[in-house]
Amino acid sequence: MGGSLARALREAGVCSEFVGAGRSTATLEKAQALGIIDRYETDVARAAGGADMVVVAVPLGTTAGVFRALAGKLAEGAVLTDVGSAKRIILTAAREAFGRIPANLVPGHPIAGTERSGVEASFATLFEGHRVILTPAPQTDPAATARVRRMWESVGAEVVSMDPDHHDEVLAATSHLPHVLAYVLVDVLGRMQEHREIFRYAAGGFRDFTRIASSDPQMWHDICLANRDALVGALEHFEGELRDAVDLIRRGDGEAIKSLLTRAKALRDRYTEGRRAGNEES
Amino acid sequence: MGGSLARALREAGVCSEFVGAGRSTATLEKAQALGIIDRYETDVARAAGGADMVVVAVPLGTTAGVFRALAGKLAEGAVLTDVGSAKRIILTAAREAFGRIPANLVPGHPIAGTERSGVEASFATLFEGHRVILTPAPQTDPAATARVRRMWESVGAEVVSMDPDHHDEVLAATSHLPHVLAYVLVDVLGRMQEHREIFRYAAGGFRDFTRIASSDPQMWHDICLANRDALVGALEHFEGELRDAVDLIRRGDGEAIKSLLTRAKALRDRYTEGRRAGNEES
Repeated sequence: MGGSLARALREAGVCSEFVGAGRSTATLEKAQALGIIDRYETDVARAAGGADMVVVAVPLGTTAGVFRALAGKLAEGAVLTDVGSAKRIILTAAREAFGRIPANLVPGHPIAGTERSGVEASFATLFEGHRVILTPAPQTDPAATARVRRMWESVGAEVVSMDPDHHDEVLAATSHLPHVLAYVLVDVLGRMQEHREIFRYAAGGFRDFTRIASSDPQMWHDICLANRDALVGALEHFEGELRDAVDLIRRGDGEAIKSLLTRAKALRDRYTEGRRAGNEES
Repeated sequence: MGGSLARALREAGVCSEFVGAGRSTATLEKAQALGIIDRYETDVARAAGGADMVVVAVPLGTTAGVFRALAGKLAEGAVLTDVGSAKRIILTAAREAFGRIPANLVPGHPIAGTERSGVEASFATLFEGHRVILTPAPQTDPAATARVRRMWESVGAEVVSMDPDHHDEVLAATSHLPHVLAYVLVDVLGRMQEHREIFRYAAGGFRDFTRIASSDPQMWHDICLANRDALVGALEHFEGELRDAVDLIRRGDGEAIKSLLTRAKALRDRYTEGRRAGNEES
C-alpha cells in the first residue's frame, strides 16, 4: 500500500523526496532499487524527522508502536496519516502514544488493494477511481485534513469523510465479513480435501469467491482483532440470515428460496451497474 | 449452456445439424439468427425425433418434464444426456419418466459457466480446459457413455466419471455452498442498505466474492431443491466452522485466528498454482 502510494505520488509529481522506513533492509533496498523511494532509514523517527507528510502503512497491530516511535519527533507543521482498515483503533493508538489525539493526525483508509502484498506487487494506478475514507476527530486541524485530502486526490482517489465508528461498521460488513467467509470456506473445503480431491472440481465461481482468502494472514489477523466488535456484529448478523436460508432449503420452501435469490441478484446487479455508471475501476 | 455447446460443436465440425427446442420462440429465433442452431421446434419430442444425440440443457426442475415429453419418442440408437448441476435427481427423474433408467441415458455436468445466462451470453470456448463429470448408472450402455465423452472431448473438455452421490457432495461443497453464501451475503448487506449507502464502500474483493450472486435465480432455486440433502450437509458443516471462527474473533484469540488464516491462504494459493500447472483456464 505504501509502495503503491509512493509510486502514484511520484507519477503525480507532487512530492520532492520519498523516504522509506521499515524493519526489513532487504525490502527497503528493493524499494530504492525500483525507484519507489529515494532513500531509507530503519529508524522510523529518523525517517520521519524532516518530512512534511508522514504516511504510516503497516499492519494495524503495528500502528501503536510506530506512533510511539514518532511521538515528539515530527517536524513543526508535519501531517500524520495512516492507511489502516479499521479507524477507531487508530484513535485509541494515538491516545496511548501521544497522550491525546494530535491535531495533525488524519486517520485514513483507501478502499483499494489486491490480495497480493509486498513492494513488488505495488503499482501507481492502485488508487485511481477508488474511494479513500478520512475519519478526522473533532480535535483534527481542518488544514491537516485538507492536505491529506489533496494528497489522495492527486493520485486519482475520491475522498470522503466519515465518523470512525460508522467507517468500522460499514467496512466490517463490506470487506471484513466477506474476507472471514472466504477464509472459512477454503478451510472447510481443506478439511474435506483430506479425504478426496475436492479442489479438482472447483470452477471459476469458487476461484473468484475465494480470491480474497489469498490475502496476507498477518494483515487480516490484525483487522480481525482491531475491528473485533463491528466484525463480530456483522458475522452474527450473517449467521442469523444464513441460518434462515438453510432452514428454507432444508424445508424445501421453493418460493422463499426463489425470492431470496431474486432479491440478492437484483441488488448485486444494481451494485455493478452503479459502479459502471460511476465510472469506477471495475 | 446449450447455446455454448452448440457453438463449440459447430466449430469442432463434429455435428451435421443442430435442432433447437424450447418454450420461447423469441429465443429460438435469436439462436437461429445467430447461426447457433439450424432450425427449431417448440415441441421437444418433434425436435428430438430424428436426433442421434439429445442434450437436455434446462433448469433442473424442468428436466423431469422434458424426460416425460421424450419418453418413447427417441430414435433407435439415440443417446440422451444433460448438463444439470445435480446428478442423483436426474436418475430419479429418469425413473419417473421412463419407468427405469434407460441404457442410453448418460447424465453429465460440465463444470463451466458464467454468471450470465441466455443465448446471447453463449460462446464456443466455454468448455475448453474445463472438466465434465459423467455419472453413468450400472444400467448405462458403455457405448453411450463413450459417445458423450467424445462429444465433450471434441470441444476441449476433460471428461471424468464419478458416482452420482459423490458428484452431488463434491459440487455441494465447491459450488452450491459458495453460491448460497454469496447470495446471503448480498442479501444481508441489502438489508443494511435500507439505512445507509453501504454498497458505495464495497471494493474489488466484494465484487469478486459476490459475482456468483448475479447468477440466474431460477437455476439456483432448482439446484437448492435438487441437491438439497448434500447442500444442507455442506451448509451445516460451514455453519459449524464459521461459529468456531466467530468464537475465536469474539475471544480475541489472535494465535488461533492467525493459524486459521495462514492455513486457508496456503490452501487457496496451492489451488491457484495447481490450476496454473494444469494449464486450465484461469
